[in-house]
Amino acid sequence: MRAVDVITKKRDGGELTKEEIEFFVSGFARDEIPDYQAAAWAMAVLLNGMSSRESTDLTLAMVASGEQLDLSGVVPLAVDKHSTGGVGDKTTLVVEPIVAAIGVPVGKMSGRGLGFSGGTLDKMESIPGFRVDLTTEQFMRQLGEIGLVLSGQTVDLAPADGKLYALRDVSGTVPSVPLIASSVMSKKIAAGAQAVVLDVKVGLGAFMKTLEQAEELAELMVEIGDRADRRVVALIADMNQPLGNAVGNALEVRESIDTLNGAGPPGFKEHCLEVAGHMLRLAGKAEDLVAAKELAAAALADGSGLSKFRELVEAQGGDVRFVDEADRLPKAEHVKTVSASASGYLTSINAAEIGRAAVDLGSGRAKKGDAIDHSVGLVIHRKVGDEIAEGDALFTVHANHEANAAQAEARALKAHVIEPGHVDPLPLFYKTIENER
Amino acid sequence: MRAVDVITKKRDGGELTKEEIEFFVSGFARDEIPDYQAAAWAMAVLLNGMSSRESTDLTLAMVASGEQLDLSGVVPLAVDKHSTGGVGDKTTLVVEPIVAAIGVPVGKMSGRGLGFSGGTLDKMESIPGFRVDLTTEQFMRQLGEIGLVLSGQTVDLAPADGKLYALRDVSGTVPSVPLIASSVMSKKIAAGAQAVVLDVKVGLGAFMKTLEQAEELAELMVEIGDRADRRVVALIADMNQPLGNAVGNALEVRESIDTLNGAGPPGFKEHCLEVAGHMLRLAGKAEDLVAAKELAAAALADGSGLSKFRELVEAQGGDVRFVDEADRLPKAEHVKTVSASASGYLTSINAAEIGRAAVDLGSGRAKKGDAIDHSVGLVIHRKVGDEIAEGDALFTVHANHEANAAQAEARALKAHVIEPGHVDPLPLFYKTIENER
Repeated sequence: MRAVDVITKKRDGGELTKEEIEFFVSGFARDEIPDYQAAAWAMAVLLNGMSSRESTDLTLAMVASGEQLDLSGVVPLAVDKHSTGGVGDKTTLVVEPIVAAIGVPVGKMSGRGLGFSGGTLDKMESIPGFRVDLTTEQFMRQLGEIGLVLSGQTVDLAPADGKLYALRDVSGTVPSVPLIASSVMSKKIAAGAQAVVLDVKVGLGAFMKTLEQAEELAELMVEIGDRADRRVVALIADMNQPLGNAVGNALEVRESIDTLNGAGPPGFKEHCLEVAGHMLRLAGKAEDLVAAKELAAAALADGSGLSKFRELVEAQGGDVRFVDEADRLPKAEHVKTVSASASGYLTSINAAEIGRAAVDLGSGRAKKGDAIDHSVGLVIHRKVGDEIAEGDALFTVHANHEANAAQAEARALKAHVIEPGHVDPLPLFYKTIENER
Repeated sequence: MRAVDVITKKRDGGELTKEEIEFFVSGFARDEIPDYQAAAWAMAVLLNGMSSRESTDLTLAMVASGEQLDLSGVVPLAVDKHSTGGVGDKTTLVVEPIVAAIGVPVGKMSGRGLGFSGGTLDKMESIPGFRVDLTTEQFMRQLGEIGLVLSGQTVDLAPADGKLYALRDVSGTVPSVPLIASSVMSKKIAAGAQAVVLDVKVGLGAFMKTLEQAEELAELMVEIGDRADRRVVALIADMNQPLGNAVGNALEVRESIDTLNGAGPPGFKEHCLEVAGHMLRLAGKAEDLVAAKELAAAALADGSGLSKFRELVEAQGGDVRFVDEADRLPKAEHVKTVSASASGYLTSINAAEIGRAAVDLGSGRAKKGDAIDHSVGLVIHRKVGDEIAEGDALFTVHANHEANAAQAEARALKAHVIEPGHVDPLPLFYKTIENER
């Protein structure tokens, strides 16, 4: 078999066999197939597509390119969640402690933020001492002991995916549904997940801008799960406006702790209960989603979710005083609240622009390896659909440099659109897609 | 400007600006844009196409990547010809001496053969001593002195094209009409051509399999010529069966000498007169094609074409005794004529398979740099449309190894299809496309 023949087959619209995909992926992972062939292939895949069977074979070939975690000795059923990324998305910080508190162990490997999309590891590092570089042994032991881990990758999961992703980033081949779906699913499967709840974001602040695109991605990931013997539920969730109110690392940790305390923004809380509910249902803790969400709500109400979060922080070396007194979390020097200059209805809060404003302040990375400032960010005070009176507080900027602050303020203000006519609030979720294994 | 933005623009079906194309081509030529970006871009071009304006800008950007020959001090109007390649295509060996004999100087830079398609330089090297590695100074001096040169490239013409072609070959991005057209035209323009006759082959033994594809390529090259201020005539010529009878280096030289002697296969002679006629017309030697072809025919009849060929051989160090007595040319050890085992009409002689049979014998290269055997090849004796009686000679195999001979014989025999029903002979040309500068 020759790499160029696999490329030309896909170029001409053919469906690649399992053998062809395995040959290409394993050759690429071993540096036997050069980047220029992989880039041409990725462009052909992007423009000509892949069937769900091809996407599944691609997923499994990427899984096979590295180590696979086997969690079966530690947990009865490994349930994981994954978000396709958004602005203010701190769902993991609330959902995983809730689920773990109810007795469903969750060992999650997360990533760092890039661009306007934040990363769970960066957020958790707002808590002094919190370590995210666990070994596999530490990961397994902690999962067994307290039923909750939040770490970076302990081994090189699906290295072919990592290598391909880096190449796609510089060759214009990122926005391909089969390539995105197989990238997500390969990481989850390699990390040992037997069931996955996918939080697929759609809207201005998400990678998928339209419901149609998000559905296509969600359906393909559910189908890959089905073909790869994994139970998958995909929730298509709104990301036109930020999720919750806080955007920025320490600010988001604080909002998560507030939510675990039973407070927090109502929309964000509801989002977390929905995701947690699906995880509990998949793990067999409840008959249906309604019962599962009641379980999750109880774990918020009785403080058991917060206790589990505190256990997590302690187990990974974090200073629990920052959980008990969230006011201790890193704070920015300049805090300024910006108000509406007109009355009307809030018709849009462009989530991507709010995310970029937070990056302006230093909360995120323009490119890999950049340093970040955990203390800065924005807190929005209103949601799309709200009636606004002139002078109402719209958002607060938390900055450490006045020049950055002005830039972020201008950007965030422009992201808030106030118009005379009434608009409906945005839904939290648009659709649920799942397979029936 | 970023390379990835140029890639994504073409990926999304956009039309690249002149500046974007120049940025990409010059960056690639200078190794600032890596192969993986160029390969992804080439795949996007292949799948999404390019306008004639983009193709012209690509052509001129590739010309600008290297040196350009200026022949204006040596010839009044630089006319060149180019064939898109085929089996048994020795047209250059006949046409250029004819044209030069009539007083139109021709300095041609040719290439070597690859796959089943032969190369002019390889053919000429059948004549002992003939040198194809002239310097620019030697090239110019000979062009001025005898009005005819047949050499490899004296300088690195359009190096960006050379680099891109090598990459396309291994990244599945060869069959793109804009990329083929700009590759051909960039070499011709860089070599100083002001007018070009393009011999675009179509059929089983050509790169373009259908008339529609060949027309698309021809029209684009004519359009590029128009936009780049070059007079271009494209002839769409049949390549379903081999051109002439001989396939293999020395065998083709011999057939060329025969043709220059006024003999040779009638179809091949007519093909040469048509190409030569267009060159003479473009150079202003005749009012119309009919008059130009009469001039060309006279140069065959009076032996002036052959004299010019002899001058060429002498000037480039070749032994002219091999021209005067073509029987001296390298000969294969085993010569076997194969006859028809059935009667009927010859409905097809698959040119690609005849070309491959010659490669089987050692006349061509499976890959760049392979050694070739000048003496071997095949001579076909009949043409499509001929009535065949059982026992009629179909073709002769000239081989140096009996094992190869058997393989080539079987392949060539299979390439000859004899069926009961009458079929018409194949035309030599399908269409002429030209611009009017």
